[in-house]
Amino acid sequence: MAKRLFKELERAYGFDEVAIVPGQVTINPDMTSTKMTLGHHSFDIPVLASAMDGAVSPSFATLMHQMGGLGVLNAEGLYTRYEDPYSVLEEIISMPQAEATGYLQQVYSEPIQEHLVGERVQEIRKSGSTCAVSFTPQNTKRMSPVAVEAGADIVVVQSTVTTARHMSRSYRGLIFSELIDTLKVPVVVGNCVTYEVAQELMETGIDGILVGVGPGAACTTREVVGVGVPQVTATLECAAAREDYFRRTGRYVSVITDGGLRTGGDICKAIVSGADGVMLGTPFAQAAEAPGRGFNWGMANPHPELPRGTRIGVGTKGTLSQILYGPTSVTDGTQNFVGALKVAMGMCGAYTIRDLHKADMIIAPAIKTEGKYFQFAGA
Amino acid sequence: MAKRLFKELERAYGFDEVAIVPGQVTINPDMTSTKMTLGHHSFDIPVLASAMDGAVSPSFATLMHQMGGLGVLNAEGLYTRYEDPYSVLEEIISMPQAEATGYLQQVYSEPIQEHLVGERVQEIRKSGSTCAVSFTPQNTKRMSPVAVEAGADIVVVQSTVTTARHMSRSYRGLIFSELIDTLKVPVVVGNCVTYEVAQELMETGIDGILVGVGPGAACTTREVVGVGVPQVTATLECAAAREDYFRRTGRYVSVITDGGLRTGGDICKAIVSGADGVMLGTPFAQAAEAPGRGFNWGMANPHPELPRGTRIGVGTKGTLSQILYGPTSVTDGTQNFVGALKVAMGMCGAYTIRDLHKADMIIAPAIKTEGKYFQFAGA
Amino acid sequence: MAKRLFKELERAYGFDEVAIVPGQVTINPDMTSTKMTLGHHSFDIPVLASAMDGAVSPSFATLMHQMGGLGVLNAEGLYTRYEDPYSVLEEIISMPQAEATGYLQQVYSEPIQEHLVGERVQEIRKSGSTCAVSFTPQNTKRMSPVAVEAGADIVVVQSTVTTARHMSRSYRGLIFSELIDTLKVPVVVGNCVTYEVAQELMETGIDGILVGVGPGAACTTREVVGVGVPQVTATLECAAAREDYFRRTGRYVSVITDGGLRTGGDICKAIVSGADGVMLGTPFAQAAEAPGRGFNWGMANPHPELPRGTRIGVGTKGTLSQILYGPTSVTDGTQNFVGALKVAMGMCGAYTIRDLHKADMIIAPAIKTEGKYFQFAGA
Amino acid sequence: MAKRLFKELERAYGFDEVAIVPGQVTINPDMTSTKMTLGHHSFDIPVLASAMDGAVSPSFATLMHQMGGLGVLNAEGLYTRYEDPYSVLEEIISMPQAEATGYLQQVYSEPIQEHLVGERVQEIRKSGSTCAVSFTPQNTKRMSPVAVEAGADIVVVQSTVTTARHMSRSYRGLIFSELIDTLKVPVVVGNCVTYEVAQELMETGIDGILVGVGPGAACTTREVVGVGVPQVTATLECAAAREDYFRRTGRYVSVITDGGLRTGGDICKAIVSGADGVMLGTPFAQAAEAPGRGFNWGMANPHPELPRGTRIGVGTKGTLSQILYGPTSVTDGTQNFVGALKVAMGMCGAYTIRDLHKADMIIAPAIKTEGKYFQFAGA
Repeated sequence: MAKRLFKELERAYGFDEVAIVPGQVTINPDMTSTKMTLGHHSFDIPVLASAMDGAVSPSFATLMHQMGGLGVLNAEGLYTRYEDPYSVLEEIISMPQAEATGYLQQVYSEPIQEHLVGERVQEIRKSGSTCAVSFTPQNTKRMSPVAVEAGADIVVVQSTVTTARHMSRSYRGLIFSELIDTLKVPVVVGNCVTYEVAQELMETGIDGILVGVGPGAACTTREVVGVGVPQVTATLECAAAREDYFRRTGRYVSVITDGGLRTGGDICKAIVSGADGVMLGTPFAQAAEAPGRGFNWGMANPHPELPRGTRIGVGTKGTLSQILYGPTSVTDGTQNFVGALKVAMGMCGAYTIRDLHKADMIIAPAIKTEGKYFQFAGA
Repeated sequence: MAKRLFKELERAYGFDEVAIVPGQVTINPDMTSTKMTLGHHSFDIPVLASAMDGAVSPSFATLMHQMGGLGVLNAEGLYTRYEDPYSVLEEIISMPQAEATGYLQQVYSEPIQEHLVGERVQEIRKSGSTCAVSFTPQNTKRMSPVAVEAGADIVVVQSTVTTARHMSRSYRGLIFSELIDTLKVPVVVGNCVTYEVAQELMETGIDGILVGVGPGAACTTREVVGVGVPQVTATLECAAAREDYFRRTGRYVSVITDGGLRTGGDICKAIVSGADGVMLGTPFAQAAEAPGRGFNWGMANPHPELPRGTRIGVGTKGTLSQILYGPTSVTDGTQNFVGALKVAMGMCGAYTIRDLHKADMIIAPAIKTEGKYFQFAGA
Repeated sequence: MAKRLFKELERAYGFDEVAIVPGQVTINPDMTSTKMTLGHHSFDIPVLASAMDGAVSPSFATLMHQMGGLGVLNAEGLYTRYEDPYSVLEEIISMPQAEATGYLQQVYSEPIQEHLVGERVQEIRKSGSTCAVSFTPQNTKRMSPVAVEAGADIVVVQSTVTTARHMSRSYRGLIFSELIDTLKVPVVVGNCVTYEVAQELMETGIDGILVGVGPGAACTTREVVGVGVPQVTATLECAAAREDYFRRTGRYVSVITDGGLRTGGDICKAIVSGADGVMLGTPFAQAAEAPGRGFNWGMANPHPELPRGTRIGVGTKGTLSQILYGPTSVTDGTQNFVGALKVAMGMCGAYTIRDLHKADMIIAPAIKTEGKYFQFAGA
Repeated sequence: MAKRLFKELERAYGFDEVAIVPGQVTINPDMTSTKMTLGHHSFDIPVLASAMDGAVSPSFATLMHQMGGLGVLNAEGLYTRYEDPYSVLEEIISMPQAEATGYLQQVYSEPIQEHLVGERVQEIRKSGSTCAVSFTPQNTKRMSPVAVEAGADIVVVQSTVTTARHMSRSYRGLIFSELIDTLKVPVVVGNCVTYEVAQELMETGIDGILVGVGPGAACTTREVVGVGVPQVTATLECAAAREDYFRRTGRYVSVITDGGLRTGGDICKAIVSGADGVMLGTPFAQAAEAPGRGFNWGMANPHPELPRGTRIGVGTKGTLSQILYGPTSVTDGTQNFVGALKVAMGMCGAYTIRDLHKADMIIAPAIKTEGKYFQFAGA
């Protein structure tokens, strides 16, 4: 049996299936540096907040900057469709669940107002913050110059699956090398999950790639269309592409694992898998300062007849400061992401993020046991 | 330990254990074609409805035709045993659950009326629809000519496990090559799950094979008799047989994955596994237009003393049109099968079903996480 | 990491992790024979009932004989400790659960009465039934001749783990070759799980081996002492030993998979793994005719300070006839074991048990899905 | 896909994923010896109680000695911070759960009193017991001489992850070879999980290593920082290091698996994995004589802003004598650890712990089945 198969299948892994192996040398966490670079920009922590309207508003982007990270503003969301997005947010939040999906479809059918793109960028820049805005490939060519002219520091081009060679009837394919020549700011593109696509995207001159298609175990994209790659394997592939590209060209493209991360442990595992940074949505939508005030919902969906996201009550878990830096009394890994990262770096003897890339990782499924008494080594 | 074993065991995979890898090139979903052929017949969508009395009535078969697919009528079910099958259906549906199995055994013990076989075929043909009818191997030789004479376009010969070389005391083995010479319409045979059996069946001259024995994870055939192969592996084997047979003979036999599919994602995975089409029962029994009106039950069971199916309340989920084409508000993949297929094709850069055969697939078990917040890439 | 390990670990498999692959030729179930031999004895069905007091009484052994199988009487249980075991059974059954373990310890501390061993054997023989009795290794040398003299046809020597070279301070090791010379009836020995031990036991001249140590997934022996091998792998190893021994000596020793079987599917899988027969306890304790009347409990435990069994309410599921031959209305595989076996044999084109040894098997974990709609191939 | 990955991942295993294979020879459990040595000290049973304040008080350490094992006193806990630790224990135990974490943080912020270190050691020594005390690396250099001067027999140096080459700004790295020269008593160091670190630690001259980082399946260290290695693999690695080191130097360093053990079966598996002894916390905190009286909590946490432990109600399960030696009426493996070990040794034909190192082990996941009827071989 199984002698002749139509194709071979390789095993892929997600965060819940791996664990980091402590190193041969350990260091004190206070000796570690968590710096990340994106093009010529440098950040104290390798953490981005996703371009989701429930997570990142202009003021949340400013707060992320003050905390050392980067909040990406969705330039095709409420903030660029409405002069007053806050009253729309208010409506979304107070809507009964049964009417939420319909209401979202309605409010996102309003057109994007180009002048608001510029205004939102200026709003973020005014506070002295690094400003990153995201577009879908369809709108990037037309709208991203508006954002850059207004002062945007980083442009993110993002769709569920993005390749360097997208074919389309309805609009001339976006050519990333041309875009980069035009904008003259770092461009981050995603999402992708394979060595080949990551390589091709890097060849176009981009400064960062977003890794992640259908990453969550219960991910709707995987349920609905069957497509997806668990994040550890996806990151391992794209990081291999980055290394090969770097060896060949001397240019370092940042790999950002985007989606499916819930805990500090997940962030550490993404980096050991080769990520230079991570991007999270829901954990930031759960911040007290998030515009969604306990709710989150997907980006404007390119396939309205096939929804893969709706409004979800995610709750409020703590301040952004607690989520990133603690202190915290929860022991489930959902707070103090940076503290967790520094402890893991200490256990692996890693002074920098790139040192942490060298740590070993094993396959060790998190089988839940009934008793949860064993909460630390030595228990 | 384990140095010497009586036999080697290979690992087999089901839909829930794999995921499709996006391609190097992506295309817009509106540029894809989902056409399938069966012999000289062509269909807009690669989707068949199973020959189950709760799913396919003559009028449902007509509806499937109008939607671009194919509904197979069970020629040994209620429609050919009763002049008025609808009052029997009414009884089955309104029966208390405790009496349902007994009542089903009773109504299916009525003899098949050959004249009704012809009449049901004519009923479907009258509407201009392509007509496919299914028989068990025991009755095929005697009854299928009746159906073809009445205008049936496709004959399906189906049992739990079908081989080209069945041995029996009670009836002379059906010889498929003779059948094909007699009928002169495309013949689809199943079910099978291995390279060898698929090859032997193709050699007989059939136009399609049905793949699937005990496919569902909770499948009763596997529980009761221990026999079954998960659908991804079964399809990979039979598709390999099709390719080898095609290379050798130039004749292309369609591989149809039958059973165990629940979602659009499952359909996409079946096709990436090498299927040319898929056949589903329960998802169509859940259509508003289905004759079972929210109930489904097995085909007349060849082993009444060892039941492997009873009446099940499957509920009504939407119209056939919604199930196949949306729009839908559910995000669990159970509606808009064709939309999902076209999105997956776009993500894999596949213009046709046979292009989608070339996509990569990985092993990535769908471990359910408690939180279900991560509903799309980038969340 | 993991470069140097103290020892290598091989993967072992249980019933729930495998499935049988249908064969290249299929036959009608009514053409199959399920005969099993044990020494010079032949049985219509390859099914033994375990030597457990809640399952096999003298009259139940007779019933098993009439049904074509073999019920093994525990010669160290209630039937040989009490003139009137039925009043003790009555007490055990009516005892509140809290007092059951204590009461069992008490009633099993009564001494075995040798004259009752002979009387129970005669009781079974009187009905014309083949009589098999089981002893622990400690008592075999002394008591088994009593049983054989009274007419016992088969002697079973059974402990949790049995080897040909047991070392003990408290009694001179039982030497199987001497035992066989003395008794001159077929001897079945167990339990074992590895190629090497099976080989050594076969060399002593025994006629059958029992396979199974800590087989159940939730097995207490595995929980308490960590020892056990899943039954598919254990059977594959012992069957390999049987084949090698047979090739070398021309003598065929029957391999009987004992423990961990719940369904007809499990029985089929044991035989495809290489078993010549199967032995079940609880499924027979669930028969209407079982002496435990809905309860079951372990054999006298050699380690009273480390209990690995107590009285369990197993319920009554049907008559022995239904459990073995149906008809049945349950679809979970717990009834009509022989029907299931014959159907599986048909699907694999196996005329005999030894033909079924040649069937293929795959690794295909039974992951439970929420929806259980897909109850048969083609659904 | 997956052709090029950033790094390779090996599979690691925990207790729930393996099972011990019975041996070719079996012996009676009463012929086995469970002796363990640590430096020049010898113990009747290879079992240590963890240095947790809820598990080991001076009197509990004495009790462990009388039972043949070793209780390690936390020399940085309540007993060395308070003249009267028992009233603090009383407070911790009676505190409402909501206030427990805060109260623990408060009481553990009191300074360690060096004179109490000596007094607690004398308290244990006075009873004639072997006395082992544990320190964190930060305090070892300063405080361990105090303990040894007072009569401590064994010094344990323990942190979540310990290496021979720890780098720190805040204190000069502890050099184990110097420590050993100074103290002149056996030193046990941990925790570690890899061959390389175990080797380096052994080179320093230590007498024992503790194995285990984030071992529990639901371990908070793994959840929070993503770091951990399941115990079977960790023990297999460290035992390989011990063997290689022993072959090279002739010096035998004891490997003690610490953490994640719940049952007698787990203890047996740790030893088959190569451990010379095991260390458990919660199972001893569940003893009637434990100072935590049904509660347990972590050692003073070096990262207060990232808690990985709080007060947990673990309940009281039996006397220490029952937990170690039975008799018991539970069948879940949580009592009679030594009985279980001796039974497993018997099944593997192991006269000594080092004989049990030679037993085979397999990968056999403990998939829970619904029915739990099969409680012993032959059922």
